[in-house]
Amino acid sequence: MNLLLKEIRFNPLLWMLVFVPAVLLGEELAPSSHTLLFILAVLAIVPLAGLLSHATEAVAEKTGDAIGGLLNATLGNLTELIIAITALHAGEYMLVKASIAGAIVTNSLFMLGASFLLGGLRYHVQEYNRAGGRLYSALLLMATIALLAPGAVADVDLAQGELMAQKLSTGLSILLIAAYGLGLLFSLRTHKELFDSKDKGEAHAQTWPLGLAIITLIVVTVMVAWVSEIFVSSVQKAGESLGISPAFVGFIVVALVGAAAEMTVAFSAARKNRLDMSVSIALGSASQIALFVAPVLVLLSYLVGPKPMDLQFWPGAVTMTMISAVTACFITNSGRSAWFIGALLVFIYAVFAMTLYVVPPGSHAPL
Amino acid sequence: MNLLLKEIRFNPLLWMLVFVPAVLLGEELAPSSHTLLFILAVLAIVPLAGLLSHATEAVAEKTGDAIGGLLNATLGNLTELIIAITALHAGEYMLVKASIAGAIVTNSLFMLGASFLLGGLRYHVQEYNRAGGRLYSALLLMATIALLAPGAVADVDLAQGELMAQKLSTGLSILLIAAYGLGLLFSLRTHKELFDSKDKGEAHAQTWPLGLAIITLIVVTVMVAWVSEIFVSSVQKAGESLGISPAFVGFIVVALVGAAAEMTVAFSAARKNRLDMSVSIALGSASQIALFVAPVLVLLSYLVGPKPMDLQFWPGAVTMTMISAVTACFITNSGRSAWFIGALLVFIYAVFAMTLYVVPPGSHAPL
Amino acid sequence: MNLLLKEIRFNPLLWMLVFVPAVLLGEELAPSSHTLLFILAVLAIVPLAGLLSHATEAVAEKTGDAIGGLLNATLGNLTELIIAITALHAGEYMLVKASIAGAIVTNSLFMLGASFLLGGLRYHVQEYNRAGGRLYSALLLMATIALLAPGAVADVDLAQGELMAQKLSTGLSILLIAAYGLGLLFSLRTHKELFDSKDKGEAHAQTWPLGLAIITLIVVTVMVAWVSEIFVSSVQKAGESLGISPAFVGFIVVALVGAAAEMTVAFSAARKNRLDMSVSIALGSASQIALFVAPVLVLLSYLVGPKPMDLQFWPGAVTMTMISAVTACFITNSGRSAWFIGALLVFIYAVFAMTLYVVPPGSHAPL
Repeated sequence: MNLLLKEIRFNPLLWMLVFVPAVLLGEELAPSSHTLLFILAVLAIVPLAGLLSHATEAVAEKTGDAIGGLLNATLGNLTELIIAITALHAGEYMLVKASIAGAIVTNSLFMLGASFLLGGLRYHVQEYNRAGGRLYSALLLMATIALLAPGAVADVDLAQGELMAQKLSTGLSILLIAAYGLGLLFSLRTHKELFDSKDKGEAHAQTWPLGLAIITLIVVTVMVAWVSEIFVSSVQKAGESLGISPAFVGFIVVALVGAAAEMTVAFSAARKNRLDMSVSIALGSASQIALFVAPVLVLLSYLVGPKPMDLQFWPGAVTMTMISAVTACFITNSGRSAWFIGALLVFIYAVFAMTLYVVPPGSHAPL
Repeated sequence: MNLLLKEIRFNPLLWMLVFVPAVLLGEELAPSSHTLLFILAVLAIVPLAGLLSHATEAVAEKTGDAIGGLLNATLGNLTELIIAITALHAGEYMLVKASIAGAIVTNSLFMLGASFLLGGLRYHVQEYNRAGGRLYSALLLMATIALLAPGAVADVDLAQGELMAQKLSTGLSILLIAAYGLGLLFSLRTHKELFDSKDKGEAHAQTWPLGLAIITLIVVTVMVAWVSEIFVSSVQKAGESLGISPAFVGFIVVALVGAAAEMTVAFSAARKNRLDMSVSIALGSASQIALFVAPVLVLLSYLVGPKPMDLQFWPGAVTMTMISAVTACFITNSGRSAWFIGALLVFIYAVFAMTLYVVPPGSHAPL
Repeated sequence: MNLLLKEIRFNPLLWMLVFVPAVLLGEELAPSSHTLLFILAVLAIVPLAGLLSHATEAVAEKTGDAIGGLLNATLGNLTELIIAITALHAGEYMLVKASIAGAIVTNSLFMLGASFLLGGLRYHVQEYNRAGGRLYSALLLMATIALLAPGAVADVDLAQGELMAQKLSTGLSILLIAAYGLGLLFSLRTHKELFDSKDKGEAHAQTWPLGLAIITLIVVTVMVAWVSEIFVSSVQKAGESLGISPAFVGFIVVALVGAAAEMTVAFSAARKNRLDMSVSIALGSASQIALFVAPVLVLLSYLVGPKPMDLQFWPGAVTMTMISAVTACFITNSGRSAWFIGALLVFIYAVFAMTLYVVPPGSHAPL
């Protein structure tokens, strides 16, 4: 418990935990102040996501390489998953899809770019492991293609094609999860030396005991679910009064909030000239969204949602996600970085955000 | 003749030659069992394609480097060409176009990916000639762009634009064939050292005499044409009863069948750690389809088909082919491979196949 | 003055200056011979553009590294800018947009390709600085994405979305110019060693005095503006009688004419085996169009044009420009070149030109 408090004391991000009781109290006292609740929920999820990934890592460290790697890989995007499941339950399909596509774009453009930018402001030119960067970006590219291809390829007429799209999405989800399993086999078993990063452990000189870690994991998961519910139920009304569309909230806000914890790790690694770690966090997380989180959501939609969800994204989302993956591939190909490369990645992200803010996808887009 | 029989005895693929009389007999006895004839024709084309490429190589070896290279390059996709001409003659334009796009996708995703996968299951990490891989993938990328750009760029309204599309396709076909000629000049004359592969000859310790090779070439070509006719005439009815669209048959079945012989060579090279050869067969063949087979079919359509064929592919085909070419470029860029890279390529192919199976291109797609 | 005449005597391109009085005289004597005036104007702009870039370089050399670099970077595409402003003033939006997209495509496919081709005809294999090539092509790719993404992403319904598109374009233009400023900071200040080319100065053993250079700059700018006016006012009627669309004129003719001067420099560098210089001229110029010329035109359209211009390009232009940028990235990635690579780039350019000539964008394309 002392350790947990110490962690909180030294990690400014966790001071934001104060917003957790605030949002719960807000829900009690002013259940109709949607905008306030929305903002409080966003602020509360950030530190919870941070705790969640700390706890996951702690459990992973204690349980040995193989199971630990599996845990890290599976629960790494737990926050995004919980928010998306809550949105699924509420039937907010546009929010779910936007948060899937947005998480890929945010991780591969903003997280990667800001890491390059922050690292580059301190170091003139930074080098990182080309082989690792390439492997991750190849994984990301192919995961993205597999996720988006149906939407780009299939010319489904919505009126008569909903059943088709559903059938296709279910089949593809099973394929994607199988590929994800093979990827784990590859990165944790047969070729784990390619993914090894010497730096990884150093960050935590002192690790939590297993019991504390597991309890934290469970408690925080429940709290994230709770706050997510407030978030999802307030998002539409809050969006209306703030003048932002569900697509923008999902694509930009949920993605930034869900990834905030990983971002602080990636950015601090970049500032310490450990770009290998930043690249693997950013691109690893993006490919996990495509290969694991998205298909799991499709399969869960049969149990959780009012109706099954498919993998048809609106055309703009397909374009943005594809561009992000291809750009990440080009950029990481060289194994070198300077501040301007990072600035340009962040800048493309800003272009996308601005486009989505000014021109939200029309109501005729497939939900 | 002994040599031919010996080849057949030691090459299990050629045992399938038994399906050639079977399909001819089937056509005689049960001309209306379309599904049976379709399956028998598919099974018969595989070994014929194998014999055809053996014979082409044998003639090429005897006629010296320059003419031999030209022969190999021109007749390398003879099977695909014959099937496509037969389909052209029958007016099955969707089948022809699907088989062009499908051959590019199948060669650059499935043949390349399965080579990486099969090689990677035996060797931990495989290296291959980066320069060669890059040259081939650049060639493929540009061939694909040239082939597909019109369909992606031109916004032809079908009602009034058919003449335009026709004019454009003819002009482009002439351009493509000119580029193909320059490519031969480059790879066989001015820069042939870049394409040299020491391994190439070794596979055939014992070569056929020229007479046998030429006779085999002619006889097998006639037989392929004969079986193709049965194949094309049965495909539509068989497709209906098996529940598969002409687009799927062309894109997946014809492409796999036509390339079966080359695949066995590419796969066995990969298993012997000669990835250079696998890469050059897969990507060389894909670029040949785009630069030579496709424009030849357009020009032949004036003589053979009921009406001229254009190069407008349905949007999904353009997307899949572009994605395949870009992916092949990224993958071969590194000059290294492991089993999972191959698995992911095969997996993208499976995604495309599944999409095409579940959601065939609509009837509103340009034929 | 002597220097100026000497320059003219030894530079065959400048002999074409004779077309300047010819077109001005033509306008006086036969103001309705649109086709003649159009051709004379095209021929007159080529040498003027050449003089303009000579004068810019001379001023840049005299004013020291920092300001000189800024001048070179800003005025490098002055000819394109003047022509586009004239067209903007005349309300010829399709011509302006086509010339923006066309300049990117022409520089990154034709100028780069012809440099490789011309260099490759003299040298068997040419090597160039990979780091520089990569930096420039990454810059180009990201500039292109930023410029085109809105058009590809936003699904604006023209009837009700014009205001939206306008708002978005203005916001993006400010972002693009900010990125351009950061790029100058990067290439002229913080990381200028990456962009240094030893060869650059050698071309001009003898430089102009500052006074002559500035006077030439001003006088020639006025003359380009004058001839541009004749060009723009004759283009539509001339296009009709020659059977070519405004899109083709902007995309191909304006782009080739505006870049003619830089092309002669890039080509002669390639013939001297200084491909670094050719690559940096071609791709640097293409990214400048996207990051500087295009947004400046949008902002100027509020002052100059009959109504504000947006950044919505017709879909074919988006596709062609994206393909060009991606292709340039792939090609320059290797740092090696041979004649066929150049031939293929030129050939893709020919494919685009032919497509645009036969199938001009329909009247339903967004202007």
